[in-house]
Amino acid sequence: MDRQQVTQKILSAKVAKQMRWADIATEFGQSKEWTTAALLGQMTFTRAQADKAQQLFSLTDEEAAWLQIVPYKGSLPTAVPTDPLIYRWYEIVSVYGTTIKELIHEEFGDGIMSAIDFSMDIQREADPKGDRVQVVLSGKFLPYKTY
Amino acid sequence: MDRQQVTQKILSAKVAKQMRWADIATEFGQSKEWTTAALLGQMTFTRAQADKAQQLFSLTDEEAAWLQIVPYKGSLPTAVPTDPLIYRWYEIVSVYGTTIKELIHEEFGDGIMSAIDFSMDIQREADPKGDRVQVVLSGKFLPYKTY
Amino acid sequence: MDRQQVTQKILSAKVAKQMRWADIATEFGQSKEWTTAALLGQMTFTRAQADKAQQLFSLTDEEAAWLQIVPYKGSLPTAVPTDPLIYRWYEIVSVYGTTIKELIHEEFGDGIMSAIDFSMDIQREADPKGDRVQVVLSGKFLPYKTY
Amino acid sequence: MDRQQVTQKILSAKVAKQMRWADIATEFGQSKEWTTAALLGQMTFTRAQADKAQQLFSLTDEEAAWLQIVPYKGSLPTAVPTDPLIYRWYEIVSVYGTTIKELIHEEFGDGIMSAIDFSMDIQREADPKGDRVQVVLSGKFLPYKTY
Amino acid sequence: MDRQQVTQKILSAKVAKQMRWADIATEFGQSKEWTTAALLGQMTFTRAQADKAQQLFSLTDEEAAWLQIVPYKGSLPTAVPTDPLIYRWYEIVSVYGTTIKELIHEEFGDGIMSAIDFSMDIQREADPKGDRVQVVLSGKFLPYKTY
Amino acid sequence: MDRQQVTQKILSAKVAKQMRWADIATEFGQSKEWTTAALLGQMTFTRAQADKAQQLFSLTDEEAAWLQIVPYKGSLPTAVPTDPLIYRWYEIVSVYGTTIKELIHEEFGDGIMSAIDFSMDIQREADPKGDRVQVVLSGKFLPYKTY
Amino acid sequence: MDRQQVTQKILSAKVAKQMRWADIATEFGQSKEWTTAALLGQMTFTRAQADKAQQLFSLTDEEAAWLQIVPYKGSLPTAVPTDPLIYRWYEIVSVYGTTIKELIHEEFGDGIMSAIDFSMDIQREADPKGDRVQVVLSGKFLPYKTY
Amino acid sequence: MDRQQVTQKILSAKVAKQMRWADIATEFGQSKEWTTAALLGQMTFTRAQADKAQQLFSLTDEEAAWLQIVPYKGSLPTAVPTDPLIYRWYEIVSVYGTTIKELIHEEFGDGIMSAIDFSMDIQREADPKGDRVQVVLSGKFLPYKTY
Amino acid sequence: MDRQQVTQKILSAKVAKQMRWADIATEFGQSKEWTTAALLGQMTFTRAQADKAQQLFSLTDEEAAWLQIVPYKGSLPTAVPTDPLIYRWYEIVSVYGTTIKELIHEEFGDGIMSAIDFSMDIQREADPKGDRVQVVLSGKFLPYKTY
Amino acid sequence: MDRQQVTQKILSAKVAKQMRWADIATEFGQSKEWTTAALLGQMTFTRAQADKAQQLFSLTDEEAAWLQIVPYKGSLPTAVPTDPLIYRWYEIVSVYGTTIKELIHEEFGDGIMSAIDFSMDIQREADPKGDRVQVVLSGKFLPYKTY
Repeated sequence: MDRQQVTQKILSAKVAKQMRWADIATEFGQSKEWTTAALLGQMTFTRAQADKAQQLFSLTDEEAAWLQIVPYKGSLPTAVPTDPLIYRWYEIVSVYGTTIKELIHEEFGDGIMSAIDFSMDIQREADPKGDRVQVVLSGKFLPYKTY
Repeated sequence: MDRQQVTQKILSAKVAKQMRWADIATEFGQSKEWTTAALLGQMTFTRAQADKAQQLFSLTDEEAAWLQIVPYKGSLPTAVPTDPLIYRWYEIVSVYGTTIKELIHEEFGDGIMSAIDFSMDIQREADPKGDRVQVVLSGKFLPYKTY
Repeated sequence: MDRQQVTQKILSAKVAKQMRWADIATEFGQSKEWTTAALLGQMTFTRAQADKAQQLFSLTDEEAAWLQIVPYKGSLPTAVPTDPLIYRWYEIVSVYGTTIKELIHEEFGDGIMSAIDFSMDIQREADPKGDRVQVVLSGKFLPYKTY
Repeated sequence: MDRQQVTQKILSAKVAKQMRWADIATEFGQSKEWTTAALLGQMTFTRAQADKAQQLFSLTDEEAAWLQIVPYKGSLPTAVPTDPLIYRWYEIVSVYGTTIKELIHEEFGDGIMSAIDFSMDIQREADPKGDRVQVVLSGKFLPYKTY
Repeated sequence: MDRQQVTQKILSAKVAKQMRWADIATEFGQSKEWTTAALLGQMTFTRAQADKAQQLFSLTDEEAAWLQIVPYKGSLPTAVPTDPLIYRWYEIVSVYGTTIKELIHEEFGDGIMSAIDFSMDIQREADPKGDRVQVVLSGKFLPYKTY
Repeated sequence: MDRQQVTQKILSAKVAKQMRWADIATEFGQSKEWTTAALLGQMTFTRAQADKAQQLFSLTDEEAAWLQIVPYKGSLPTAVPTDPLIYRWYEIVSVYGTTIKELIHEEFGDGIMSAIDFSMDIQREADPKGDRVQVVLSGKFLPYKTY
Repeated sequence: MDRQQVTQKILSAKVAKQMRWADIATEFGQSKEWTTAALLGQMTFTRAQADKAQQLFSLTDEEAAWLQIVPYKGSLPTAVPTDPLIYRWYEIVSVYGTTIKELIHEEFGDGIMSAIDFSMDIQREADPKGDRVQVVLSGKFLPYKTY
Repeated sequence: MDRQQVTQKILSAKVAKQMRWADIATEFGQSKEWTTAALLGQMTFTRAQADKAQQLFSLTDEEAAWLQIVPYKGSLPTAVPTDPLIYRWYEIVSVYGTTIKELIHEEFGDGIMSAIDFSMDIQREADPKGDRVQVVLSGKFLPYKTY
Repeated sequence: MDRQQVTQKILSAKVAKQMRWADIATEFGQSKEWTTAALLGQMTFTRAQADKAQQLFSLTDEEAAWLQIVPYKGSLPTAVPTDPLIYRWYEIVSVYGTTIKELIHEEFGDGIMSAIDFSMDIQREADPKGDRVQVVLSGKFLPYKTY
Repeated sequence: MDRQQVTQKILSAKVAKQMRWADIATEFGQSKEWTTAALLGQMTFTRAQADKAQQLFSLTDEEAAWLQIVPYKGSLPTAVPTDPLIYRWYEIVSVYGTTIKELIHEEFGDGIMSAIDFSMDIQREADPKGDRVQVVLSGKFLPYKTY
C-alpha cells in the first residue's frame, strides 16, 4: 500500500457519496484549499485529521496511518501538464515568469516567494461580462543572504 | 533583427540608466505587471506605446516597429525553470495543480480560468514575522460547451 | 476506479456491441464530435447524459457518477503522437503553426483562438481525385488586454 | 547562408515596410495561407514566385535562389509550443486527437487525412457574442492498403 | 480489453505453437510484411481476416472484434529505439535522412514519399562475403501543392 | 572551422551554381546516394575526392583537409525529425520496426542488418496512379555470436 | 507472457537458490559474460540452451520457448542510467567518446567497432593500492564503403 | 574565451598540419588515450604540458592558461549519441549494462568500477576474418561502505 | 518478486508499526543515514543485517534474500524531482554546482568527491531565528591521473 | 549585453591573471563559497561589491551595473549534469534523496530545508587513507502550515 492508493480510495468515495470539497473542508475546520490539497495526497495529516478522514471516507487503520506520513509531493503526471485548466497556470508561469521575477526582485531584492510558507484562496469574482476566477497567493519573502 | 534583440536592448538600457519597472509603468500609464511583461517581449504595443518605448530606451524606428508585432510568447529557456524564484511558481502548479482544478470545477463546472482575459497584481504584504509577497490573479472563467 | 477505467469499459462495450459513434451521438442528441470526445474521457456529462451512457454501455452507478466528474484531459500517451493519423495534425501545427499565428494576429490583433469556446465538424468531401476529409474548426477569438 | 536567414530578412523587410500578408498574397496570386507559410520558410517557390519575392523584399540573387530549394520544414522551436495561440492548436490535438481519429476511421476506414495534399482557409466569423476564428482544413483521405 | 492485449495473446500463441510469420502470411494470402505488421497491432483486419486470425490463434469473439478496430499505431516503447536491429534503422534515418530528402526532392520536387500508400519487401540476398538483408520500400510520391 | 561550416559552404555554392546532386555524383564517379551523404557531412573523402570537391565548390585547402577527417555523424537537429519527408521514414521505423525485426530474425536468426556495410538506391518508379519512390536498402547481416 | 516475465522468474529463482553467474555459465559451457546477458533477457538461446535453463530455473515449456525467441534488447529503464555502477560506463562514453572515435578512426579509417560481432571479458586485476576491474572489449572493425 | 574555443583551435591546427594523435602523444610522453582526451577538452594540463601544447598548436598565452584550468567535462552534444561509432558504445552500455553490473557485484560485492582512477588502451587486434578493435578498460574497484 | 516490492513491504510495515528510522538504525547498529538508505532499497545487506530486517519487518526468506542482492540504485521517479524537499537539493546542485566544482578543483586539483566512499550526517541545528537542518557530507577525493 | 557575458569576462580575467577564488573572497570579505557563486553569475552584488569586482576584473561601468541585477539562476547546461564532479552530487540526490526526505521529516515534520536561507562550507578533511572533501550544508527548516 502507498499514499497514492489511499488518495485513489478517497476520490472514489467522494464520487460515490457525491461530496463537495467545500463541505469536506468544513468538517476539517480548515480552508478548502488546504483540505483539498491534503486529500489529493500533497499534505500531511495530524492524528485528529486522519481520524476525521477515516470516518468520512471509510478508511482502514493502515490507510489512516498513511495520511500521517509525509507524502512524496507533485500531483501531475507530466512535466508540462496536458489538462487545459492546469496548463493555463503553466502558461502563466511561462509567459509571466520573468515579469514576476523582475517585480518581486525590484520590491524585495534577491530572494524568493516561498511555496512552503504559503497560502492560497480561490474565489468567484462576479462580473457582468462573465464571472471570473480570483486567486490570491500569499508567500513569505525569503531573501538570499551573503555569508 | 527580431523581437528578442529589441528586448535585450531594452534591458541593457534599463540597467545602464538604472530605471525601475514601477516608474517605467507610470510613463506608460499602465500597470507595472503589464508593462514589464510587454517590455520583456511578451505583449504587443500600440503605436503610441511603441513611441513612448522608443523615447525611453533610445530605440531605432525599426526596433519600435518590432514592438507592434505580436511576439512569439514564452519567456523561459527550459520547460522546467531552473531559476529558484520562478521554480517556486512551477512547484505551486505541480503541488497544487489538481487542487486548483478541483476547486474551480466545483464552483464553476467544466471549463478553464483564462490566461488571456487575465490580470495580475503583485504587492508587498507587511507581516511582523517577515513581509510576504501577495499576488492576485484574476482570469475570466470560460466554460466548455456541448454542441 | 478512475475515469480511464470507465472509458476503457465504454470502448470494450462499443467493440462488443459493434456500435457506431454517429449512432451513439444521435442517442445523446449531440454532435458526433462532442459525443465521441466525451465518451473518450475528455468531457463532462450532465446527470441525464450519464444516465443515457449508463444504459447504452451497461455501466454501474459508480461508473456513471465518474462521467459527471470533470476529467483530467489529454488523450495521447506521448508529447509527439506516434499514430500516423494523429501525427499529421501535429505536423500541421508544426509546419503551419507560425502561419496560423501570423494570419490570426493580422486579422484580429494579439490574442488567441479559444480551444474551450470551440467546436469542430468533420465531414466527407466528395472529390473525383479521391475523397477528402474536411474539418471545420470554430473558436472564439479572445484578445489580450492591457491593464 | 541558409533558408532561415532568408526568412529572417523577409520578416525584417515586412516589419520595416509595414506590409500585410493578405496584400502580399495578392501580389503572388495565391491564398494568404500558402503565401504566408512559404515566406515563413515552409514551402518551395517557383522561379517566378522567387522573382516576385526578390522584388518585394529586396533580396539578393542568392537569397532568391534559396527560396527555390525545398526547405527543412518545421516552424516551431520546441516540441510542445510555448506560444499561447499555437499551444491552443497543440491542445486541440491533445484533447481531440483520439476523437478525430475515431471519426475519420468510422467514416473512411483505416488511413490518414493528408497533411501534404492539404489546404487551409482562415476566416473571421462574425458573432454577436464575440467574433470567432473559423478554420477550414481539407486533406485528401489516404487509405492503408493490404499487400 | 484493448488491442495490445490481443497482440500479446497472438504472440504467446505463436511462440507456444512454434509458428512462422511466412507460413501465417500464406494462411492470410497476404505478404509476410503486411501480415506481421497487422498481427503486431499496426494494421486493421477485415471480417474475414479476423476470422482467420481467430481460428489460428484461438481468439475469443471479442478479441477478434478488436482486430477489426483501427489501432493506435506505433510499435516502439521509446522515441529512440534501444533494440540494436531497430536502432540501425533509426541510424539510417539519422545519417541518411537529409540525403534521402535531397535526392527525392531533386527527382520529384517538393513533397513526400508516402508511408501510407506504401509497401515493403524483405529478402535474403546471397553474397559470398556474407548474406545481406535487402529491403525494398515503395511509397507513392505526394507533391505539395500551391493553393 | 569545423566540418559543418564546410558543409554549409558546399550547400551555398551548390545553390548559387544551380548544380544537381546527380551531376555532381558523376563528377565523383560514385553513386548519387553516397556522394550526397558525403557532401552533406556524413562520409569521409579520400584525398582525390577532396581535391575534386575543392575544385567543384571553390574550397580552401583547409576546407578540403576537413573533408578527409571522419565527421561526427548524424544529420538531423532533433531526435524526432520535424521535416515531413524525413518524418515519414521515422514513422516507418515506428510502425514497422517490430515487423522488420521479426522478419529478419525469422530468416537470419539473432543479429542485425548493418547500417555500415550498407548501400542505398533511390529511383523513380513509374505508376499510372501516380509515380512512386522506390528505395532499395542493402545491408550485410551480422549475427550475434555466443562466446 | 513475454520475455521480461521469464527474466524476472529466472532472477527470482537465482536469488532463492543462491546461485552464482559463474557457476551457471559453467553449466551452459559459455562465458559468464554471454550467459549472464542471455539470462538477463538480451540474447537468444538455442533449443539445448533453453532446455538447460528450463532445468536450472524450473521453467515451464512456454517459458523455455520464449528464451528461443529473439528478445527486444536494451536492459536499462532510462536513457541516462541512474545506477552508479552503470552510470560510470555512461560517463566513460560521455567523457571519452570523442577520444575513442578519434583513435579508432586514426588506426582504421572511417567505420565502427561492432557491438554485434563483439565479446567482453571481465576480470579482477589484483593491485596493492586496491584491486581493479579489468574489462576487455573486442569488436570487429567494420569499414564504411563508398559505392 | 573558454576551453571549447581552445579545443576548436587545436583541432583546426591538427587538421591543417596533418598531425596524428599517436605522434602528438609521443611529444607529450603520455599514452595516446590520455593525450587525445586532454586535447579534446576533457583533461587538465600541467604547466609543462600546456607549454608543449602551446608550441605544437601555436596557442596564445591565454589559450595555454585555459588548458591548465579543470574543464567542464562531457564531450557529446546529445544524451544519446548520434554518431554511429560512439553509439555502439552507448549500445554496449544499454545491452550489457545489467550484465556488467551483475558480474562486478558477484566478484567484488557492492560498489563501482571507477571512471576516475581509470585507464584505457585501444589496440588493433589482427584477425584473419577481419581485424578487430580491442579496448582494455581498467578501473579501481570502489566499495560502498556501511557507516 | 524484486527489490522494490521488498522496499514497499518494509515501508508498509514501518507505517503500520509506527516505527522511527532512528530507532530502527539502533537495532542495526549503523547510522540512521545508512540504515534508511538501505531499507529504501539503495544499499546491500549482509546476511546478519538481512536477518535483523527479516525479524523487524516480518519478511519471508525470499524477501530477506533479496536484501542481500545489490540493488539497481536510484530512488526518484523523475530526472528532475517534483517533491519540494528533494527538489531543493537538486536546486543546490543547479545553482551551486559550478561553485562546488571550482572550489574542490582549486583545493585538490582535477578529480571528484566520491559518492561511493561517502558518508552523510543529518542533524538539527538549534537557532533562535528558527532551527536549521545541518547536513555534513564527506567523500574521499579521487584524483584524475595521467597515464 | 547580459549577465552571462559578464561572467564569461570575469572567468577570462581570472584565468589570465591566475587568481584564486580563496584570495578573491578575501578581497570581498565574504566566504569563498558565496563569492565564487556570485562571480559565476548566481548571486547579486551590492554597489560596493560590484565596485570591488569592477576593479579586480577590469569591468566596464555597464558590466558592473549588471552584477547588481538579480540574475536568472541555474549554472548547468543540462538537466542531468555531464561533468563527473557535478554528476556525483546529482547522484547523491538520486540515491539518497528519499533518505534525506525521510530523516528530515522524522526530525522536523513536513516541510523543507531551505536552499535560500542557506550556507555551505567546503573544506579539506585530512585522512591517512586519502584526503576527503567535507561539505557542510546548513539550511533553515521551513514547515508547511495548515490554513
